[in-house]
Amino acid sequence: MNRHFIALAALILSAAPGFSQDLTQGSWVDLTHPFNADSVYWPTAETFTQTEVFAGHTDGGYFYSAYNFAAAEHGGTHIDAPIHFAEGALKVDELPIGQLVGPGFVIDVSAQAEADVDYQVTAADITGFEAEHGQIPQGAIVLLRTGRAGLYPDRESYMGTAERGEAAVANLHFPGLGLEGATLLVERGIAAVGLDTPSIDHGQSQDFATHVELMTHDIPAFENVADMSGLPATGSTIIALPMKIEGGSGGPLRIVAHLP
Amino acid sequence: MNRHFIALAALILSAAPGFSQDLTQGSWVDLTHPFNADSVYWPTAETFTQTEVFAGHTDGGYFYSAYNFAAAEHGGTHIDAPIHFAEGALKVDELPIGQLVGPGFVIDVSAQAEADVDYQVTAADITGFEAEHGQIPQGAIVLLRTGRAGLYPDRESYMGTAERGEAAVANLHFPGLGLEGATLLVERGIAAVGLDTPSIDHGQSQDFATHVELMTHDIPAFENVADMSGLPATGSTIIALPMKIEGGSGGPLRIVAHLP
Repeated sequence: MNRHFIALAALILSAAPGFSQDLTQGSWVDLTHPFNADSVYWPTAETFTQTEVFAGHTDGGYFYSAYNFAAAEHGGTHIDAPIHFAEGALKVDELPIGQLVGPGFVIDVSAQAEADVDYQVTAADITGFEAEHGQIPQGAIVLLRTGRAGLYPDRESYMGTAERGEAAVANLHFPGLGLEGATLLVERGIAAVGLDTPSIDHGQSQDFATHVELMTHDIPAFENVADMSGLPATGSTIIALPMKIEGGSGGPLRIVAHLP
Repeated sequence: MNRHFIALAALILSAAPGFSQDLTQGSWVDLTHPFNADSVYWPTAETFTQTEVFAGHTDGGYFYSAYNFAAAEHGGTHIDAPIHFAEGALKVDELPIGQLVGPGFVIDVSAQAEADVDYQVTAADITGFEAEHGQIPQGAIVLLRTGRAGLYPDRESYMGTAERGEAAVANLHFPGLGLEGATLLVERGIAAVGLDTPSIDHGQSQDFATHVELMTHDIPAFENVADMSGLPATGSTIIALPMKIEGGSGGPLRIVAHLP
């Protein structure tokens, strides 16, 4: 009888909605591009640099290596804190940890993005996903898979231009989240949204309306997220922890997914 | 009857050993000091700097803020990757995510550290903890609480000197993990070890024997961890995600604890 109860308990467990995962089991997917000299930054931004302090054997008899580094907050795999585009909104160090950890909902828009490099994810893309997987719940971390992570860090193919400077901005071409899609995600009460392009607004955006919509509602965006093809549409746990820069508008993000 | 079964299932669940936690419930403790002009670095290292790119209303009609930043890898709340003190060992971007997430074991040595600023945590401190809480398992994340996080970032009281430069190194005074303690933790097969001082070796170390012992075995160290007083001795989940610097010897770490 005890065995029967345990089997039933296991059944109840596996059927239970929610989020319980044994993090020591299952597998991890690192959704983070490494920071190096090729890391992708906005054409007008400082890029990542690393300089050696020391690397080798010391007079003390031990091996030692250490480096310095410098970068803009917004480049490589990074977070846009709400203050990036919304006055008075949360800074990167003020984001609650509970908002940076949550159930992952991966919306595959790679077919649309392949057909149109300037594609903007629509509300219909989101409701279409929901028709199959159920409504996106409050606290969800929504990841938009445009399928372009494999082009990173080749800036010409990934973002439309390898040029730097103000004049290059007009030549940016990559998909993003459209304003009506952003508005729907705000209504859903999501915790955060990310995608595998340089910006949550598409490359041709002039008004950054999606940034403004999300960030006015204190929703951060994860940009230049790495390959999501190993993630299920639902059932992953996303953990996205940024460097804690006091007063920062964003910064380097380590984003990982746990699969049960 | 169904209600009875569910109650039993809940009981089985709560009694189950292991690591399963609902990350959407419970609470989070951020164990990370913010990066700012006061962040604590080794007396010989570059410190953290942040410079404004833009902060205010743009001609485009939207608010915008962004900054650049620069630092040494080893300062503030950070990780020492094994390559920091062991030739050929893992670099910061090579550490498996599964090694950076695990059950937390918090060993309180604050009484010993208060009595002796140069205290080195001993094997007896660890076996004493185990006598009360059981043997530290493989994959554990061990946190040593010296109780000095509250002194951060006052360098004079936190690390013995506010001076910078090579001459100041001899004046460093803070507790660390002794070599015999490190050897025992290596034997236990822990995933990582951290503490609330600037270095896993105590301030007066000349040979950095604890770094070498840990890192030769590919065990990273978390340094300048923030206040652990809100953590239980066992039962927390530690998630410690570093900035993914390619080839890095360490870097900024966001370390958090989840309590069920």
